Amino acid sequence: MEEKIIQTRHIYKGHVVELDVHEILLPDNTRSKRELVNHPGAVAVVALDSDQQVFMVRQYRIGAGKILLEIPAGTLNHQESPEDCATRELQEEIGYKPGKLESIGGIFVAPGYTTEFIHLFLATDLSEAKLDGDADEFIEVERIPFEKTLDMIKGGTIQDGKSISALLQVARKLGK
Amino acid sequence: MEEKIIQTRHIYKGHVVELDVHEILLPDNTRSKRELVNHPGAVAVVALDSDQQVFMVRQYRIGAGKILLEIPAGTLNHQESPEDCATRELQEEIGYKPGKLESIGGIFVAPGYTTEFIHLFLATDLSEAKLDGDADEFIEVERIPFEKTLDMIKGGTIQDGKSISALLQVARKLGK
Repeated sequence: MEEKIIQTRHIYKGHVVELDVHEILLPDNTRSKRELVNHPGAVAVVALDSDQQVFMVRQYRIGAGKILLEIPAGTLNHQESPEDCATRELQEEIGYKPGKLESIGGIFVAPGYTTEFIHLFLATDLSEAKLDGDADEFIEVERIPFEKTLDMIKGGTIQDGKSISALLQVARKLGK
Repeated sequence: MEEKIIQTRHIYKGHVVELDVHEILLPDNTRSKRELVNHPGAVAVVALDSDQQVFMVRQYRIGAGKILLEIPAGTLNHQESPEDCATRELQEEIGYKPGKLESIGGIFVAPGYTTEFIHLFLATDLSEAKLDGDADEFIEVERIPFEKTLDMIKGGTIQDGKSISALLQVARKLGK
């Protein structure tokens, strides 16, 4: 089932997105094209406080054309480990750092056309530790009872894929 | 928190992916750039047979650089409803059509840089009805007991975001 890349045309290299068009050899030896976004990868974190509340961020998302409610997340810096990235993003976005950070797997967001893989974490044992965030990010932070986030997924109020994958995995882990 | 698009540069228009770079006005009236993939949207379907087995497809994914195990899914055709698309994709990919098709919400896969929204469905009451699929898709279909897919998510064998979101929502719906 493998596809072999036989030629690559670099279309665009931007701030977040790099687009290539690959000519590929299919398993039956015919040729086809694959458009592929190169992405450095990212992290997303369910940060749970001692009252079983989750830190969520509201942010305008151009891809959705509206404000979405998401768990804190961000793109890996060059040579940054997913764990370091998770800790940094929490400090930048919600002003807390985790005493405990557990991997809860990860997701390919759209493996047909982007390389992006998001490492998912559960962060607990939170303590205040603010870092300055990106200048072009305008976010609002709120704490929502964990059980309520599950209702918000079911009701369609939370529509962000990484947030749904991560929150539902944590629900299973905690037996909720 | 809204961002206003003030100018758009069309970078590329391909088979699946269309890339624009937007100059935007941020809430503080400064300017920034957003790279955005325009995508027609898609569907993904948890197809459950009468033995509580789920149809899964193995497919080489260039974005992952490997074969992934995913629920059946596909891109919306022009003016096609999500329900029609779900029924068509099931017929093409697994050779069955649903007697019952329930919406289980949807996900923005990466709202920072793509417009793609995936409509998620639960399909039951399946009956055989094969349609020919895309010529450049090489997939292997298998049936996996539903409970096992949950273990495969936990163990990291299933890493596809839409599949994880959809299977975990169905698990909650069925009380599994």
